[in-house]
Amino acid sequence: MTTSSYASLARENRVKVLKNLAEAGVTTGVVYLAGMKTTERKWTDAEVAFRQESNFFYLTGATQPDLHLLVDISSQESYLFIPKFSDDHALWCGVPPTTSDMKSLYGVNHARTVDEIPDVLSSLQAANVHVLEQETEHGAIGTWQSKVDKTALSTAVIEARMRKSPGEVELMRKAAKISGDAHIALMKAVGTGKGSEREMHALFEYECFRQGGRFQAYTPIVASGRNGSVLHYVENSGPISTDKRDMLLVDAGCEYDCYAADITRTYPVGGKYEGDWKTTYEIVLDMQNAVLSALKPGVKWEDMHQLANKVAAEGLIKAGLVKGDVPTLLANHIPAIFFPHGLGHSIGLDVHDVGGYPKGVPRLTDPGIKYLRMRRTLEKGMAVTVEPGIYFVDAMLDKALADPEQVRYLNVDVVKRFQATVGGVRIEDDVIITEDGIDNLTGWIPKEVADVEKVMRG
Amino acid sequence: MTTSSYASLARENRVKVLKNLAEAGVTTGVVYLAGMKTTERKWTDAEVAFRQESNFFYLTGATQPDLHLLVDISSQESYLFIPKFSDDHALWCGVPPTTSDMKSLYGVNHARTVDEIPDVLSSLQAANVHVLEQETEHGAIGTWQSKVDKTALSTAVIEARMRKSPGEVELMRKAAKISGDAHIALMKAVGTGKGSEREMHALFEYECFRQGGRFQAYTPIVASGRNGSVLHYVENSGPISTDKRDMLLVDAGCEYDCYAADITRTYPVGGKYEGDWKTTYEIVLDMQNAVLSALKPGVKWEDMHQLANKVAAEGLIKAGLVKGDVPTLLANHIPAIFFPHGLGHSIGLDVHDVGGYPKGVPRLTDPGIKYLRMRRTLEKGMAVTVEPGIYFVDAMLDKALADPEQVRYLNVDVVKRFQATVGGVRIEDDVIITEDGIDNLTGWIPKEVADVEKVMRG
Repeated sequence: MTTSSYASLARENRVKVLKNLAEAGVTTGVVYLAGMKTTERKWTDAEVAFRQESNFFYLTGATQPDLHLLVDISSQESYLFIPKFSDDHALWCGVPPTTSDMKSLYGVNHARTVDEIPDVLSSLQAANVHVLEQETEHGAIGTWQSKVDKTALSTAVIEARMRKSPGEVELMRKAAKISGDAHIALMKAVGTGKGSEREMHALFEYECFRQGGRFQAYTPIVASGRNGSVLHYVENSGPISTDKRDMLLVDAGCEYDCYAADITRTYPVGGKYEGDWKTTYEIVLDMQNAVLSALKPGVKWEDMHQLANKVAAEGLIKAGLVKGDVPTLLANHIPAIFFPHGLGHSIGLDVHDVGGYPKGVPRLTDPGIKYLRMRRTLEKGMAVTVEPGIYFVDAMLDKALADPEQVRYLNVDVVKRFQATVGGVRIEDDVIITEDGIDNLTGWIPKEVADVEKVMRG
Repeated sequence: MTTSSYASLARENRVKVLKNLAEAGVTTGVVYLAGMKTTERKWTDAEVAFRQESNFFYLTGATQPDLHLLVDISSQESYLFIPKFSDDHALWCGVPPTTSDMKSLYGVNHARTVDEIPDVLSSLQAANVHVLEQETEHGAIGTWQSKVDKTALSTAVIEARMRKSPGEVELMRKAAKISGDAHIALMKAVGTGKGSEREMHALFEYECFRQGGRFQAYTPIVASGRNGSVLHYVENSGPISTDKRDMLLVDAGCEYDCYAADITRTYPVGGKYEGDWKTTYEIVLDMQNAVLSALKPGVKWEDMHQLANKVAAEGLIKAGLVKGDVPTLLANHIPAIFFPHGLGHSIGLDVHDVGGYPKGVPRLTDPGIKYLRMRRTLEKGMAVTVEPGIYFVDAMLDKALADPEQVRYLNVDVVKRFQATVGGVRIEDDVIITEDGIDNLTGWIPKEVADVEKVMRG
């Protein structure tokens, strides 16, 4: 049996986690994780397509259900436990793998069947069984449940997962490549009044899947025209706009080997950015470019959000949507009316990856930034999305227009003009923090006005 | 707000269930069901695409998460309960529906918010709260949990769901149409050594999704060559065979308005049935045609399985795979070596629909038929799959060839010849039992040798 391509990364990841545990003073006992179980649609026998739980994948690379992992902390030896397969497994699902197959496939030190977990724990004379904080099911370890320790493992895994190794970055690049090609396919396929959001959504998933992106990292958002003003629009049930100036906002990315891409592009259904739509688009492009240029180790993520807000304020003034000077607008949270969400988040095995808020770091409470999914000082190897946006959301604007403290900064007629036609714009890339800047995994997917228009001309 | 297209069917379904309850002597109290909740991928905030729980869909037609239903049994009045939406719902997900929106959308008598369930129960002075047997969560009904009654509702719902109304049949026909068109797209796309099972799988899902089949009713099986001998082959990870005689087995169907299609076609990657492959295919075609001709009200499903076995025995003799007379071969379970699964199952809102075994009806224990998912006397309105198959499964054949009681009925050389090359053939249609026969929802999808070859020639 060929060794899984992730086996060496998984080994590297186990070493990283053990190193983090050692730094936290944990040098004995075992690590225990249960993998994702086979699941069915509620109250039926219809199996749900299997996707491994991210932490378990990180430490094993295993893509089968119903597995368990033990790592002996002092010896660093790994034990993978596999199910006992029923007699008719060969008929229904093919000849099942043996423990020996699984040992070679995943490059662990030992493979056994799941009923042997308590015996192995006994032979290791484990003082503690370190499990993830959120884990509630420990049936498989039997009486060893009395030794469960939740104090150290979660942080050790989170801090390891936060910093991507070169091997992990290459998997993210592959997810980005497949997803980016799918975005380009949509740019080429869309046309004024042609088809539906659903067809675009289906095409995106198809383009990913046929290239090896079996799972989307999240439900795609495919929003035409004013639907783009709903931040988490996942209905994707409308027609493609019949106004050639209207834009399609596509926020979609697949997984490759469980690593996520998360990409947004927004483009005019007629292939040419025009008028208020173009104005809005260019503000967002400026916001994103400012952040991409500023990103490097040592930078605080919340400062990047504020930088995007500042560039937004400048752009909104220039567009005639708001009035006043930049500091006053920022102090009064005026940009947050148009940019009401966070700048981006950690990304990796999960699209909203672990570790956004280290223990003890609270959320900020101001408008917009309160939704920021991460407060971290950036380090080399961290992976983040950079996804500023400008939206004309009825719920936000109606409130602001009715608020005497806010409306005085708004050019009411201009705001209402944009609100009536422009939905929203978001531009989102996935970047890795490098020694002195970033490696933008998705920057090659057209986003400059001329580049998008060129692709759309075909 | 436009009324949901399913609203009138849901009302009809509620009446049916109440009628079944009345026949079981239940004429007071209330029916309570909780709908499917919003779910996320384990330990993450990545929402899983929402698909309503089938029983809840049957009684409401509702396609939103986190709803609850009460039906007052004596007055037949229905109450739909919707979540209390958070203040920022409008920003993230658009303006939420009101109770009044939901009342018109789903044609219920009353709509309230979920916190009002206990009050409504009090106002109805419910003596019993009838819930499904498998339901374990009743938090939303508060102190009324002491009145929970599981004795009658499940059977009432199952017996209603077993008999499809004309409206339900039309939704199944639509699922069959979309899925059938996707099968034809694959027949046209496949070619000797061209592409992969994964690409065919991706194309199937795409063709369904773009036509409105958002969900597959089950994980597709796309098996080239010998992979067709694994009954539940869902890896779909191999190449398309480079031998033009090899066959592709595609078992796939989507849902439409939650109603399933379940369809299998098997065809040569080179477009022409040949040799042992054709021989195998024609046995299965004969098995299926015999059953389709015999199906009508009053027939026992297990007898149909035995009919398929009998035709299999005749075909296997003619092909020179087995020797002996038909009764002897049947008595010794020889056909089950090649046809090791059940003939088919009830289908509806679930691909393996409820009600296969009424209370007290046990499974049979003989080879093959022990896997039969239904033992029922067929009635008008029942929907079943008819899916005979012939497979050359190593695990089955190696065992039979080593068994002196079985090997004497096998022509060893011929069996080994087929085993080395032919994978498996399954042909599966979805039929509704009518007054005097069947309505085959999927019979139009090419399966006769000449018809398939014609489509594949393009």
